[in-house]
Amino acid sequence: MTNLLSLNDLSVDEINGILNRAEQILEMKDQGWFDPNRTLVANLFFEPSTRTRFSFETAEKRLGFQVLNFSSKTSSTQKGESLYDTVRTMQAIGARAVVIRHQREGYYRELMHGIDIPVLNAGDGAGDHPTQALLDLLTIQQEFLLFKGLTVAIIGDLRYSRVARSDADVLSRLGCRVLLSSPEEWKNDSLPGEHVPVDEAVRAADAVIMLRIQHERHEQAMRMTTEDYHRRYGLTRERASVMKPGSIIMHPGPVNRGVELDSDLVESDRSRYFKQISNGVAVRMASLEWALHTEKEAKKNERVAEKW
Amino acid sequence: MTNLLSLNDLSVDEINGILNRAEQILEMKDQGWFDPNRTLVANLFFEPSTRTRFSFETAEKRLGFQVLNFSSKTSSTQKGESLYDTVRTMQAIGARAVVIRHQREGYYRELMHGIDIPVLNAGDGAGDHPTQALLDLLTIQQEFLLFKGLTVAIIGDLRYSRVARSDADVLSRLGCRVLLSSPEEWKNDSLPGEHVPVDEAVRAADAVIMLRIQHERHEQAMRMTTEDYHRRYGLTRERASVMKPGSIIMHPGPVNRGVELDSDLVESDRSRYFKQISNGVAVRMASLEWALHTEKEAKKNERVAEKW
Amino acid sequence: MTNLLSLNDLSVDEINGILNRAEQILEMKDQGWFDPNRTLVANLFFEPSTRTRFSFETAEKRLGFQVLNFSSKTSSTQKGESLYDTVRTMQAIGARAVVIRHQREGYYRELMHGIDIPVLNAGDGAGDHPTQALLDLLTIQQEFLLFKGLTVAIIGDLRYSRVARSDADVLSRLGCRVLLSSPEEWKNDSLPGEHVPVDEAVRAADAVIMLRIQHERHEQAMRMTTEDYHRRYGLTRERASVMKPGSIIMHPGPVNRGVELDSDLVESDRSRYFKQISNGVAVRMASLEWALHTEKEAKKNERVAEKW
Repeated sequence: MTNLLSLNDLSVDEINGILNRAEQILEMKDQGWFDPNRTLVANLFFEPSTRTRFSFETAEKRLGFQVLNFSSKTSSTQKGESLYDTVRTMQAIGARAVVIRHQREGYYRELMHGIDIPVLNAGDGAGDHPTQALLDLLTIQQEFLLFKGLTVAIIGDLRYSRVARSDADVLSRLGCRVLLSSPEEWKNDSLPGEHVPVDEAVRAADAVIMLRIQHERHEQAMRMTTEDYHRRYGLTRERASVMKPGSIIMHPGPVNRGVELDSDLVESDRSRYFKQISNGVAVRMASLEWALHTEKEAKKNERVAEKW
Repeated sequence: MTNLLSLNDLSVDEINGILNRAEQILEMKDQGWFDPNRTLVANLFFEPSTRTRFSFETAEKRLGFQVLNFSSKTSSTQKGESLYDTVRTMQAIGARAVVIRHQREGYYRELMHGIDIPVLNAGDGAGDHPTQALLDLLTIQQEFLLFKGLTVAIIGDLRYSRVARSDADVLSRLGCRVLLSSPEEWKNDSLPGEHVPVDEAVRAADAVIMLRIQHERHEQAMRMTTEDYHRRYGLTRERASVMKPGSIIMHPGPVNRGVELDSDLVESDRSRYFKQISNGVAVRMASLEWALHTEKEAKKNERVAEKW
Repeated sequence: MTNLLSLNDLSVDEINGILNRAEQILEMKDQGWFDPNRTLVANLFFEPSTRTRFSFETAEKRLGFQVLNFSSKTSSTQKGESLYDTVRTMQAIGARAVVIRHQREGYYRELMHGIDIPVLNAGDGAGDHPTQALLDLLTIQQEFLLFKGLTVAIIGDLRYSRVARSDADVLSRLGCRVLLSSPEEWKNDSLPGEHVPVDEAVRAADAVIMLRIQHERHEQAMRMTTEDYHRRYGLTRERASVMKPGSIIMHPGPVNRGVELDSDLVESDRSRYFKQISNGVAVRMASLEWALHTEKEAKKNERVAEKW
């Protein structure tokens, strides 16, 4: 019988055989048994995500990595295990990097000690979303080559959007003029940029980034209907008609057609909506390479017995 | 530090390094960076399915493809995103084909414009299930070589079963005589075939296709007990005993033992139940090849910048 | 049009083309089309599990296998299909082995006839967990080389823990002295070993295995607070301070820090907690090799037409 149902069915010789083979496997591992194609990456998504997870998963597979996927609506499925213990477990299983999305802003602070593999942030609450910012940069760079002197408008939910924060911060650093526009209740004075009325922002911008209404992030209903939002803060066809020549429309997705953007604009000439998504895979491939190549080699050797 | 937590931690040089590498990756892509082994296929299942999804996934992996899996009980997880936008997103991520199961009959009509990659229908509501029909054909062909002149009985839920529709249509076209048998409330005059009593259908058929009771599709309870159904419309041992020499029993699965089929018949000599499942993988491999090789080459070049 | 939406869109020639190609694929299969790298394994988890599933999945990918993952909180997603039919379906799809976790103790008894591929038990209710026992053995062997004469303490939920049973059984067989310690309501006289007070067990043991409190397995609340449990049955720092030189601490995970183990002990010098996890991948690789190499060759040939 070759089932493995209970060790009671196995002879002592069989048990020893398996143990010895496991030891051999561990030795092969220590002798560099894992070729680069076997890099293992774990995607830990504690918040629902289809697009970002698929983008990372595709990037990992394009790089020839092996992928473990964990998705959960809440971290309660962890049976009370801390995020630290979960990531440390992934490291012990052999992951060479972890990609994490978590509803808790700054979740990664508890991972700063004891974790020896890179953490790639796929979104932390209303905090950051660095690979989204990178793909936005790539999309802008493809259009305008240089960031210095560009005007970029970020419009919508400035308070709860991690995209707004990541984009505003890095665009300012790179020398862009950042214009911000939002309903009063979603204003955010901590973001770098000038608050201006939406029509002014759209007229002045080389790139207009329309933010998604994050129904799932802040529980309270918007204080207006979606039609109202569209008319007052959305990119209507009328508003888009005064955009500068050569200027582009962006959106982190998934877009609520007819709310943030008039549906016809999503695939218009100015729109880079789907191009952003394609760029996302390339940017995540580059980010994974960046994070893995500069891995802390020193520490790695210290714990080699436990790492795959 | 090699974590990617916030772009605020990266120098401008590091950011530029990642952007340039992403551009390189995009150029490699345009130069045919993707070899045939790297074809990416997305499985989008908006209705629960284990068997069909595993069959497609196995087919894709056997063909050397990379696979993205999306499963959802309802399309609500799409956060209000349209199916069109979801598929367009998969295309932008790099999928070369999508396999879709959706509870909405004819869901694919909204994908007819703007999507440049093949859609393989894994079941649309009570509409169609073409790869199931193909595997049924393959199973019949293996047995009888020719379709012309064969008599095939389709018995059970003719109204809500997409298998019934797909099978009846194609078997008629291929020259089979199709016999239909069902409870009164599940009769379906739109199907090609002759309505006959179940005993007559079983006696006359070369192949008897027993349909699954779709508890999950039509909410209202059957107007009889399952024991009653078995006795009146199921393939009982007694009924099966009058089947023609050489005739076979089929079922799309998962079978309710003792309802559509007497449990003992599932693995009887006449049954092709598990053979159908094996055939399903081969048929889906052939279908994927068929759909991908004849891809609309012209359109592909138009949108190359955005496609992987 | 290259979509596959309904066979009504295909010509008879196209349908025949797909059927013939499927036949070709089946012939290639019979001629050894599948190389060893293409071994397909299905992981069927009817109980939630992250760590064991990831460990098996990693083991399978490290061995170059293709992997199908099925996870479900309850077996109700099977739409009433029996476990036997599900596994038989996986076999028909082409799986060469199945890894199963199921809440029903001894679930595998219904698979003893008709299934020709190895079943690897990843936990059956409160029954067995053989690969956990194997990784515990490997961890102990790495430390002490020989089992004979060692003293191993197993402490905690002896009644509902399948780890307790699997470990106690095999450690006794290998010549270890097994000490058992638990709250009165979790005592288990069917386990081989001596029941002793927790302090005595800790003091005498070469290896102390602290069991997880299985909140998810037995509904009734513990009859004490977790603080109480920690103080009376947990491995506190004070208790650990009297452990023998060279002795080690183990836990099957996920650990409830501050309950079964003082949080500081989890990554202490004595602890092999994360090493156990690493060992788990190697042990599962060895187990899969063991189960697959000794596959019932005879039976395999009997059913070749249906197996991939």
